[in-house]
Amino acid sequence: MKMVSQLVIMISTVVFVSFCESLSYIWPLPWNCTWGNQTLSVDPSLSLLVNGNSLIVQQAFQRYKRIIFKHGSNLPPTGLHYHINSLHIFLKSDDEELQLGTDESYSLLVTKTDPHSIVGGITIQANSVYGALRALETISQLCIFNYEAKTVEIYKAPWFIQDKPRFSYRGLMLDTSRHYYPLSVIKQIIDSMAYAKLNVLHWHIIDEESFPLEVPTYPNLWKGAYSKWERYTVEDAYEIVSFAKMRGINVMAEVDVPGHAESWGVGYPDLWPSLSCREPLDVSKNFTFDVILGILRDMRKIFPFELFHLGGDEVNTGCWSSTPHVKQWLQEHNMTAKEAYQYFVVKAQELALSLNWTPVNWEETFNSFPEKLNPQTVVHNWLGGGVCPKAVSKGFRCIFSNQGFWYLDHLDVPWDDVYYADPLEGIRDVFEQKLVLGGEVCMWGETADPSNVQQTIWPRAAAAAERLWSNKEATSSRSSAQLALKRLEYFRCLLTRRGVQAAPVKNKYARTAPVGPGSCYAQ
Amino acid sequence: MKMVSQLVIMISTVVFVSFCESLSYIWPLPWNCTWGNQTLSVDPSLSLLVNGNSLIVQQAFQRYKRIIFKHGSNLPPTGLHYHINSLHIFLKSDDEELQLGTDESYSLLVTKTDPHSIVGGITIQANSVYGALRALETISQLCIFNYEAKTVEIYKAPWFIQDKPRFSYRGLMLDTSRHYYPLSVIKQIIDSMAYAKLNVLHWHIIDEESFPLEVPTYPNLWKGAYSKWERYTVEDAYEIVSFAKMRGINVMAEVDVPGHAESWGVGYPDLWPSLSCREPLDVSKNFTFDVILGILRDMRKIFPFELFHLGGDEVNTGCWSSTPHVKQWLQEHNMTAKEAYQYFVVKAQELALSLNWTPVNWEETFNSFPEKLNPQTVVHNWLGGGVCPKAVSKGFRCIFSNQGFWYLDHLDVPWDDVYYADPLEGIRDVFEQKLVLGGEVCMWGETADPSNVQQTIWPRAAAAAERLWSNKEATSSRSSAQLALKRLEYFRCLLTRRGVQAAPVKNKYARTAPVGPGSCYAQ
Repeated sequence: MKMVSQLVIMISTVVFVSFCESLSYIWPLPWNCTWGNQTLSVDPSLSLLVNGNSLIVQQAFQRYKRIIFKHGSNLPPTGLHYHINSLHIFLKSDDEELQLGTDESYSLLVTKTDPHSIVGGITIQANSVYGALRALETISQLCIFNYEAKTVEIYKAPWFIQDKPRFSYRGLMLDTSRHYYPLSVIKQIIDSMAYAKLNVLHWHIIDEESFPLEVPTYPNLWKGAYSKWERYTVEDAYEIVSFAKMRGINVMAEVDVPGHAESWGVGYPDLWPSLSCREPLDVSKNFTFDVILGILRDMRKIFPFELFHLGGDEVNTGCWSSTPHVKQWLQEHNMTAKEAYQYFVVKAQELALSLNWTPVNWEETFNSFPEKLNPQTVVHNWLGGGVCPKAVSKGFRCIFSNQGFWYLDHLDVPWDDVYYADPLEGIRDVFEQKLVLGGEVCMWGETADPSNVQQTIWPRAAAAAERLWSNKEATSSRSSAQLALKRLEYFRCLLTRRGVQAAPVKNKYARTAPVGPGSCYAQ
Repeated sequence: MKMVSQLVIMISTVVFVSFCESLSYIWPLPWNCTWGNQTLSVDPSLSLLVNGNSLIVQQAFQRYKRIIFKHGSNLPPTGLHYHINSLHIFLKSDDEELQLGTDESYSLLVTKTDPHSIVGGITIQANSVYGALRALETISQLCIFNYEAKTVEIYKAPWFIQDKPRFSYRGLMLDTSRHYYPLSVIKQIIDSMAYAKLNVLHWHIIDEESFPLEVPTYPNLWKGAYSKWERYTVEDAYEIVSFAKMRGINVMAEVDVPGHAESWGVGYPDLWPSLSCREPLDVSKNFTFDVILGILRDMRKIFPFELFHLGGDEVNTGCWSSTPHVKQWLQEHNMTAKEAYQYFVVKAQELALSLNWTPVNWEETFNSFPEKLNPQTVVHNWLGGGVCPKAVSKGFRCIFSNQGFWYLDHLDVPWDDVYYADPLEGIRDVFEQKLVLGGEVCMWGETADPSNVQQTIWPRAAAAAERLWSNKEATSSRSSAQLALKRLEYFRCLLTRRGVQAAPVKNKYARTAPVGPGSCYAQ
């Protein structure tokens, strides 16, 4: 890797401007940048040179070329000499393994192509293919179509950017049980996540309303789907995981037990305590845990991500106490209903752990019996503030989704409340801070469906995405809100240019229509 | 064309069921169908055989294969013997000229592949490539993915369908002045139009708020765009026309004069009567008509469709009467302001006619001075009922867009009011009926932008699309509303499966969120 060391020597002479506050065009904000005052034109025939054989990088390059040169296909040849003709990617490794903590950092250099230098054009240096993907996204945001000159240009060059994520877990939750999202819509969402450098799709597949996923071992389960067409085959799920991986996004599946599971019983009524009392899953039967294990075994083949979400939220044990055979079982096992809830969650955790998964559970499990949870457990906060501080003080890892800020179905939360929420709120100890994996915005599906999900997600999910990616100091002062707003409006319009239905930024309620005619950049 | 005559002989023995009321799955409803009770599987490697060399047909086949076999790419090989392996298209002509009245009729036969017959598999017969495109859409709606068998199937085969449009003009208007729509969004809209067999995109490019289109002859005009990025280059416009043509959709451009033109003056302030009174365009200056001619000349190269919309609506002549130099000009020419409005519209018509365009004007022109309009004029109704009857009784052609039913920005119009509106309302004479070219739903852009335009358009535009395509008798009885609703809900879900953000059908106000969890097919 001689070239790489030359590059490092060259760029080490550049003086860094700390932070990048004044950038107009990049979302989320990179960590360190320097820029100049040149305008460089970019060749529509931009070529890729990359070491290694990563198909993921090659396909990403083609994808970003289509995004960058959207206006290119019909343009007359300009006869121009372009300033930038090639994009070099230097990968430390072309290993395509994607997991929690996979290195996403990158350096990016944009200069005029100089035949005497190896570092002209665009140069990316990254430890992993996924760092290269993040760099390509940044480049695509630097490349701006000049409608007068009819060329793609990069302003304020030469650029040198060093960038990395603040948190390793930057998630978006999608609920496919309250409403079904066709494959094409899920792909649109994954595509848009990559634009904001989010890296985990938390797929809340199943809930009480419907069970859309095929489970080969228990083939009646997806009879709990809304209809025979509102389903995901095993192959659909593989396709989603693979499509996401190509964009550097892990898929964390969720099987929410023992509550939120009424739909399971449509195919297997024995899972209900009784026909008239259908939730939580019947804790008293071995069959219940057989089915869970069957589901997890089938899903393990599909979902390689090391985290797996077992839910555990909002468990009302009334049916257990009121159904004779379950009540009897509780008595025989000398358990209260609350203890049975704990018993269920811990048993489900053991099944997941036996399949080499790290369990994630909603915070009620931690709030109720922290000492019983497996120490590997990742606590998923949602009810309010202060939970991650408690969880990490006990040595658990934590994901921040405080519903007051990061529940996207709360339509009255303005963009800046989303933006200034912080996963490390209330955690001062550096070791404890490291236990916070990151955060996630949650798109619960009661009133979101394929017709409006994207404008409920965007632009507010982008506000959280910057919080999770960017340097906190550079993006935290309330006085910088105007600058952040300007960039977010720009990013929202960028999303619409890429075909994503991102809603106006400043409306009082999310996903509402623009109030009147006007420029995208001012709404 | 021996094969075609064999086909005609074979299908002439089939007994027709009049209408197709009981069809569950096709929107808009075809004219004549017979069906059986077989379920046929369709080979994901479906091959195309077509006479002629139409690229439009070949690309449409590939597009529809991607739609039909969306779940196919990841499926394990089944080892199945499929019932349908090939699609034959017999074209009377492979001429790709697309104009008003281009033949869109087709016959479609779906039977098991029989090695001894030329008509097994899927057989399309059409007079033009565009009839073949409509047939492909119908086929794509017949092909249904069976999630259990994991194959695409056609139910109720054998099918024989004979189909044709009721009206030659089936339009959707898009307003790119109140809000800008990026190229990718316009393409999404065109794609979705083809699914409903709409065939004219009426592009209301410019209005008082912004002038997004490049006009090479008057390069300052698009300085009236909202921003330097909310623009369409000439090449973008070519791209839209070409993309639409590939889907059998004409693009009718509009230059709305003399009102709704304030944005023109940003680049050329001389077009305003004065700096303080900016609309309508200054009728007193030759420069005004030079600019209009320059625009039309530049646009003529881009828009081959024979109809061109010259607007002419909502002209408030106050600025003419109150601006000294215009007032003086009126006096010198012995004109009232109202006569000057007529003078302006007729002069603009002459410019369009000189470029071999047929002028379309909003109904105010007809309401104000019908005897002065060029007899070729197509009157575009919008203010209410009864206008097309008057226009055709005077020998004009007419397009129906009664705002009480077909203005999509009227969010309180329910799907069935859209559905039962009829362009021929009040016209009994058969010759006069033929003067009604069809109708158009209008998507004015005051509160529609890329974030919500598709769910404002769909599903209600589909209701109008069926009115414009299907046999009136088969789709007119109010008692059939339940059947139509079921099919429309199905079509709405089909749109979402194709990635189109079609809103719930039954909400009181268009484009509002689903009221709660539930199946797409019931909302």
